[in-house]
Amino acid sequence: MSSRDAGAAAARLPARIGDRLLEVDTPALIVELDALERNVAAMAAAVEGRGVRLRPHAKSHKCPDIARRQIAAGAVGVCCQKVGEAEAFVTAGVTDVLITNEIVGAPKLARLASLARNASLGVLVDDRANVCSLAAAMRAAGASIDVLVEVDVGAHRCGVLPGAPALELARAVAGEPALRFAGLHAYQGAAQHLRRPAERRAASARAAELAFETRTLIEQAGIDCGTVTGAGTGTFALERDSGIYTELQPGSYVFMDADYGRNERADGEIRFEQSLFIWTTVMSTPAPDRAIVDAGLKAFAVDSGMPLVADAPGLELIKASDEHGVVRIAPGTTGPGLGDRLKLVPGHCDPTVNLYDWIVAVRNNQVEALWPVAARGALT
Amino acid sequence: MSSRDAGAAAARLPARIGDRLLEVDTPALIVELDALERNVAAMAAAVEGRGVRLRPHAKSHKCPDIARRQIAAGAVGVCCQKVGEAEAFVTAGVTDVLITNEIVGAPKLARLASLARNASLGVLVDDRANVCSLAAAMRAAGASIDVLVEVDVGAHRCGVLPGAPALELARAVAGEPALRFAGLHAYQGAAQHLRRPAERRAASARAAELAFETRTLIEQAGIDCGTVTGAGTGTFALERDSGIYTELQPGSYVFMDADYGRNERADGEIRFEQSLFIWTTVMSTPAPDRAIVDAGLKAFAVDSGMPLVADAPGLELIKASDEHGVVRIAPGTTGPGLGDRLKLVPGHCDPTVNLYDWIVAVRNNQVEALWPVAARGALT
Repeated sequence: MSSRDAGAAAARLPARIGDRLLEVDTPALIVELDALERNVAAMAAAVEGRGVRLRPHAKSHKCPDIARRQIAAGAVGVCCQKVGEAEAFVTAGVTDVLITNEIVGAPKLARLASLARNASLGVLVDDRANVCSLAAAMRAAGASIDVLVEVDVGAHRCGVLPGAPALELARAVAGEPALRFAGLHAYQGAAQHLRRPAERRAASARAAELAFETRTLIEQAGIDCGTVTGAGTGTFALERDSGIYTELQPGSYVFMDADYGRNERADGEIRFEQSLFIWTTVMSTPAPDRAIVDAGLKAFAVDSGMPLVADAPGLELIKASDEHGVVRIAPGTTGPGLGDRLKLVPGHCDPTVNLYDWIVAVRNNQVEALWPVAARGALT
Repeated sequence: MSSRDAGAAAARLPARIGDRLLEVDTPALIVELDALERNVAAMAAAVEGRGVRLRPHAKSHKCPDIARRQIAAGAVGVCCQKVGEAEAFVTAGVTDVLITNEIVGAPKLARLASLARNASLGVLVDDRANVCSLAAAMRAAGASIDVLVEVDVGAHRCGVLPGAPALELARAVAGEPALRFAGLHAYQGAAQHLRRPAERRAASARAAELAFETRTLIEQAGIDCGTVTGAGTGTFALERDSGIYTELQPGSYVFMDADYGRNERADGEIRFEQSLFIWTTVMSTPAPDRAIVDAGLKAFAVDSGMPLVADAPGLELIKASDEHGVVRIAPGTTGPGLGDRLKLVPGHCDPTVNLYDWIVAVRNNQVEALWPVAARGALT
């Protein structure tokens, strides 16, 4: 048993810079740089001058190279979901990180406190006992940290109820010298993939209303509530224009995916481009109506449905096993040949990226960069 | 960009040997050694003296430490699904590997040929052009390899049709001096999770019949067809007793999962034990009917349904997002407390294991070993 054994696959580079895309072996996770850069720029432009900060969620890409581009375009830092992700970003020089999650248990709290000595960190709470544990860990390390109270504004995952329960927790935080009460986390995750613009508008408006009432209550109690953060790729323009949110945390917009592609867009809504693909090879052509690609459940996530086959009308990925994807060839369509390449649009970008050690960054069908997915597998 | 960045998360050990299970931070992938060892022994006993070889599929565990235990119990080697997996096992000293897959494209074929110089390797074919490319790669490397023709015996994934098409391909293989025609791959993947024993029996019997007819045809043409390999955890006893199969390749039996747990067992069928779990912490207790664990889509695969909560009647994992699992607490059930640990039974073991760099091997609630998932992420 050696810790080096565990990183063996990760150590092999997936391509060489300068390779033609056709030379990149498969499956590989590729990003089309022109599209990614346009997405980063479009989000930056959408937020600039609107009185809100952009703090993109790095759980989508887990990649410091992308975070640096987002920050260069105006983002104030990143969000992470795990201490291990935050460690990876801080190590890579991205030192302003909000962990949009509760951190529970002594080992993680000790790591969080250690990290807080070297970075500008924030974290969420939704439990009084957790506030005490967090404060104790910070005191023990001689560290301090921004703390936001997570409010359940409709997602029904973590979070205290809006209003009095949030005020009570804000008071608890404010009473701990090692903690800086920074505001509210009011993310309406359930709103992001509501298909119709009117549904997203209604869910986002309700979340903003609950956040507003809660912030008002806390400020009336004499506690400053500087930050209200939330929003995702599906609703960020609504929170931006709400007058309540001060920080936005969309993540998927850099890549997009098939599930976001199914959202109907509102008038004037930005059309972020698909920049993320799974690069595959046709490894078997067993029948006129069927081709098999070399990517399956270990190369893409299927929680939000099968990937789509890009730029190939008549081809549909209908089934996946561990290392195979079954492509149905529609009648009248000429199927791909053995060794042909197909580009897949992942159903859900975040858990798909987490399956790869590297992002192959491509421009004009040529490899321009190899980006480590530095926080891949950072589960704790 | 450095190749070391990509292995950063992998390098951190998930526990220390000797730790109590309660000290292991979460999420973690744990294996209960007593159960795993009983599963390995039960499969070995089921095959011993039956005239068939056991070559367990290593795509399930990707872990040389487990492969070595299987081989110590009588397995002749392992199956892999990817060249990268085979490389990881050969590097770890497991040098008899059948890649139960077609390998397509010059880069992979060159790696395969290089590996074949240092190991006893087998591979599948289902295409005439691929036979030529495979032979050319072997000649270029001065290597040789066992080649099996994959026959579609009902799974409708890869493979040539039984009978004449298989004979034609066997002839092509036999005509290449760098290739050793070794027999047939007749895996009926679709049979493994048919819920009723009679359905599995029928599918397996049909596969065996097609394999028998095809083998007969090939041998009548004067080509020796020594190996007929196939079978999985759901049907292995049927192929074992078929009189046709000479090698069995079950994988999941070492771990089991919720999906296999839904198979009705036939009379006398071995009850393999659940040995694989996702170790989680309750990170939020927001409502009497809901608790949130710190494991989500990046900690377990959901292609075969949500994980089950082990040993906790009244608790059901109903929803997962990237890093959260939502547990419903049935009315009348006392919910878990903040920081409590829950053990989850993965829906599908193979793609779940692939999310982890380490397996934490536990006996009597104490960490006995840490096993690298050496072939984690070995996609190419």
